[in-house]
Amino acid sequence: MDAQSEKLLLRLLTQTRIAALGTLHGEEPRVSMVAFVPAPDFSAYYIHVSRLAQHTVDMQKNKQVSLLITEADDGRTDPQTLARLSIRGSAEFMQNGEPGYAPVKSSYIERFPESATLFLLADFGLWRIKMKGARYVAGLAKAFNLTPESLEKFLRK
Amino acid sequence: MDAQSEKLLLRLLTQTRIAALGTLHGEEPRVSMVAFVPAPDFSAYYIHVSRLAQHTVDMQKNKQVSLLITEADDGRTDPQTLARLSIRGSAEFMQNGEPGYAPVKSSYIERFPESATLFLLADFGLWRIKMKGARYVAGLAKAFNLTPESLEKFLRK
Repeated sequence: MDAQSEKLLLRLLTQTRIAALGTLHGEEPRVSMVAFVPAPDFSAYYIHVSRLAQHTVDMQKNKQVSLLITEADDGRTDPQTLARLSIRGSAEFMQNGEPGYAPVKSSYIERFPESATLFLLADFGLWRIKMKGARYVAGLAKAFNLTPESLEKFLRK
Repeated sequence: MDAQSEKLLLRLLTQTRIAALGTLHGEEPRVSMVAFVPAPDFSAYYIHVSRLAQHTVDMQKNKQVSLLITEADDGRTDPQTLARLSIRGSAEFMQNGEPGYAPVKSSYIERFPESATLFLLADFGLWRIKMKGARYVAGLAKAFNLTPESLEKFLRK
């Protein structure tokens, strides 16, 4: 991957706060908006959702999900040049108190202070979306297939 | 629906240029970015995609799709208050020359001038995503179920 595409990806993954979550609803795809924090090595993405929400019910039935992180549209002439990462993932509910729960909760609340009160409600829970692979489009005719290993490797450079 | 939510939805649908397209890839959901133009009555959304792209192959196999249109993140404290419309739709390939093709092509090129050259390539085609229904989230604890009829009705007000 060229240096510019790498820089763009790092910015995309560290500065974007919302993503489009694709779940399976019966036999149809559904896409909804989620706020997220990434794991430090970008191998997982954490969301905090209500158990009453449709995407949560969908994930309980089928853990196969997709997460799209898109650069904000800045009004440029051609939006096809916007950077985006389309992640294929597996969703897992995190038990309150399980190893890793506390630091994820902290970083989620740090990024989204308004969520602190939601962590007090039994209705809301943290989910981990583990990346199985991803397609990174850095712009027109610049696309890369990524694994968790390749992603972590070059972001650590 | 309250007047403020209506105003927000109209702005969302007329000013947003990109969306997250959910397709079925085998038995898994996939989400990718697309640029779109809406039909004047917002009952359909048009995208122009390469037949080599994975979402296009997915749509050829299964026309059930979902389209998420999200207000751009403006950095507000709580992104859960961003407006978004999650559309359940059915995707249909449009034949070059079929009724309705020319005006859609015109409005697509008007919005995305760089796409004009892509219309000259046999690889690219227009698809119509017809709305079957939608869930509109106007912010925290403000959600509405919409049909094509209810959407058209209030946007015409």
